[in-house]
Amino acid sequence: MSNATSEPTAAAERPTQERKEPTYLFTEKYVADKSEIARRFIETRARLNANVDKANNFLVKRFYNIDHNTYLEGTLPAKTKELMGLVASACLRCDDCITYHAIQAYRLGVTRVEQEESLNVAMVVGGSIVIPHLRRAYELLEEMYG
Amino acid sequence: MSNATSEPTAAAERPTQERKEPTYLFTEKYVADKSEIARRFIETRARLNANVDKANNFLVKRFYNIDHNTYLEGTLPAKTKELMGLVASACLRCDDCITYHAIQAYRLGVTRVEQEESLNVAMVVGGSIVIPHLRRAYELLEEMYG
Amino acid sequence: MSNATSEPTAAAERPTQERKEPTYLFTEKYVADKSEIARRFIETRARLNANVDKANNFLVKRFYNIDHNTYLEGTLPAKTKELMGLVASACLRCDDCITYHAIQAYRLGVTRVEQEESLNVAMVVGGSIVIPHLRRAYELLEEMYG
Amino acid sequence: MSNATSEPTAAAERPTQERKEPTYLFTEKYVADKSEIARRFIETRARLNANVDKANNFLVKRFYNIDHNTYLEGTLPAKTKELMGLVASACLRCDDCITYHAIQAYRLGVTRVEQEESLNVAMVVGGSIVIPHLRRAYELLEEMYG
Amino acid sequence: MSNATSEPTAAAERPTQERKEPTYLFTEKYVADKSEIARRFIETRARLNANVDKANNFLVKRFYNIDHNTYLEGTLPAKTKELMGLVASACLRCDDCITYHAIQAYRLGVTRVEQEESLNVAMVVGGSIVIPHLRRAYELLEEMYG
Amino acid sequence: MSNATSEPTAAAERPTQERKEPTYLFTEKYVADKSEIARRFIETRARLNANVDKANNFLVKRFYNIDHNTYLEGTLPAKTKELMGLVASACLRCDDCITYHAIQAYRLGVTRVEQEESLNVAMVVGGSIVIPHLRRAYELLEEMYG
Repeated sequence: MSNATSEPTAAAERPTQERKEPTYLFTEKYVADKSEIARRFIETRARLNANVDKANNFLVKRFYNIDHNTYLEGTLPAKTKELMGLVASACLRCDDCITYHAIQAYRLGVTRVEQEESLNVAMVVGGSIVIPHLRRAYELLEEMYG
Repeated sequence: MSNATSEPTAAAERPTQERKEPTYLFTEKYVADKSEIARRFIETRARLNANVDKANNFLVKRFYNIDHNTYLEGTLPAKTKELMGLVASACLRCDDCITYHAIQAYRLGVTRVEQEESLNVAMVVGGSIVIPHLRRAYELLEEMYG
Repeated sequence: MSNATSEPTAAAERPTQERKEPTYLFTEKYVADKSEIARRFIETRARLNANVDKANNFLVKRFYNIDHNTYLEGTLPAKTKELMGLVASACLRCDDCITYHAIQAYRLGVTRVEQEESLNVAMVVGGSIVIPHLRRAYELLEEMYG
Repeated sequence: MSNATSEPTAAAERPTQERKEPTYLFTEKYVADKSEIARRFIETRARLNANVDKANNFLVKRFYNIDHNTYLEGTLPAKTKELMGLVASACLRCDDCITYHAIQAYRLGVTRVEQEESLNVAMVVGGSIVIPHLRRAYELLEEMYG
Repeated sequence: MSNATSEPTAAAERPTQERKEPTYLFTEKYVADKSEIARRFIETRARLNANVDKANNFLVKRFYNIDHNTYLEGTLPAKTKELMGLVASACLRCDDCITYHAIQAYRLGVTRVEQEESLNVAMVVGGSIVIPHLRRAYELLEEMYG
Repeated sequence: MSNATSEPTAAAERPTQERKEPTYLFTEKYVADKSEIARRFIETRARLNANVDKANNFLVKRFYNIDHNTYLEGTLPAKTKELMGLVASACLRCDDCITYHAIQAYRLGVTRVEQEESLNVAMVVGGSIVIPHLRRAYELLEEMYG
């Protein structure tokens, strides 16, 4: 769906949306040491990503780049956007994506109750079909926060 | 998926999650006066809900009740949860649900840029298939904030 | 999506929908002894549910409660509703949910052919993407009924 | 996913699954006269199907044929399978398909409460995202049964 | 899901994937003159996109750009990729996206039978839930090719 | 959704869509020897299909037959249709289906870059939720083509 040319005057009227890297309170390694589920996920993802990188596919790199930009500090805090990523992942029912965003949220200092409230939105919007994923998410939360 | 009995001692160890009604800055009527899309949605929903209420179905009433409780002020602000509802709705691609949560977020004082950042999470997680819904959401945003 | 107040007079005009616990012909343990797939599922689910219970999350408990009420004996027999749960699970492609409802249906005395006919509805509505799940469901059916 | 050759001896061991056309209590015309929503749906579908038929596409005809066979009287009554089609349609969120199966179920003598209980299964499995479709379904039920 | 740094040596070993703009045989205006469905879609989309452009959202612009690059002439012809977009749109059940890719494919000289064969893949993978969308797609095909 | 009777005169005006079996350059065994992922998939699928065949279910056999016919040489080459099956599988997020179609495409002589371009369409249409599946698909591609 090709984009019509943007209108610079309209753009000028709007405040720039700043984007900057969030500050993580914890490293991936810290989380991996606390949680076996996190450790396995992080290792598998690194191994598979190395393979994707090797392929050097232009569009995949571009997509990874957009994806990275989506969760930066902006008008909404990075914390909030990671939790939104968690909600989206849970209601679309992707365990890997749930694990990824729950770990990222943890690293940014999100509390367990905040993660649970986010999962509740996904459960109510997405229905009981989300529950098996919620159960597995709670196991991860238990390992990280327990 | 039947629930095993809860464990009261474990519960006692956890802080109670307070829930209270959020404070709306704007009434539905205010939004309906600003936006024709909002007005049509609010009217149609009221008409159809009256019909659902008349049926007085036990489980539907229970579900509406849970749904209502999901978006109350809690550990996360109601604003954030309405935006999470927006993300979930957009990545599951339900125009009615997008319109509902965008209106609710507006009534709670969420800014346009915050709504756009939330829609970006849905677009990136859900892909280009979300874009037709995003276009319609921007039309609603334009009417409400324009 | 908040619920408008229900209309008691309309409700009074309608027969009460009775709900009562179904009578299971077989225990979970009986099924677990016949089928290794069922046994692993039941054990994993119990372990993960214990963890969810411990969290004592208000909305999760409410949702589990609604979920439980959905499959009780009502105007439609519990058998039929478990099979409907099976159809929904298969066309939404959730292996855990398929396993759960196939076991529940078995415990209520549903025959294998009835389970297969239900899976056919899901296959035709949901397409070939359902087939890998159908294959795994047939393996469970074979273990339970074989 | 190509099919391995079937095994005739195994087949011989199983009772034949009879399939026969269900007996409708009401014609499509009868429903169209009671409900404006049904009338519009039936007319639009007939017009669009005429166009599909004209194309005479081999695989589409085959698929329509399988689809037709799915809802015949079998081990499970046609009524039950139409309600399963309704559940599948509602949790996959297709208004046209919901309307189609609700009409078919009505024509076979299914009661309103049976339709509502079926929709409840879809609502609980599929979540609040199903509710806008449930609202529209209740409008159709009101027109047909009211 | 942040991207690990790409490996330039691995990249150097692979042939560059050329991307270039496809040559359209027909303008959007030509299609809009033949088909009322196409005309309405093209006009609505232009109107809504103007509104999106005005918002000048960084990530939306980036996503539109990636989306544009996806369907360029590459190792696979643009024709094939537009038909793949059609298949993806049909099995994810987005009428706007189906209309968009069917028009693009037409503009590149794809025949009606090629469009139908593509829709068949979506119908078989995605099931009968795709059929209401297929019916509407055939109406568009009839207008464009009839 | 029952099919209205087809119109033979309209059919007569259209060229017959030939269907014939494609010529595979490689056997399943060849692929299984190159790739451990492929080997495990092929073996598991054969084992589970044997069980499905034994059940001798009329509608399942019919569906497998339609499915087989979908990917034959036609107006579009079998190669293209297997890649369309890959796109559909990836955007509907079914690892088994992705593996199946990637193997089939390989057996027909499709190159790795053609598989990657197809996966890009699925990634852009389906969003970042597709990426965990894309990662696993690249691992299979590496084993088959590496």
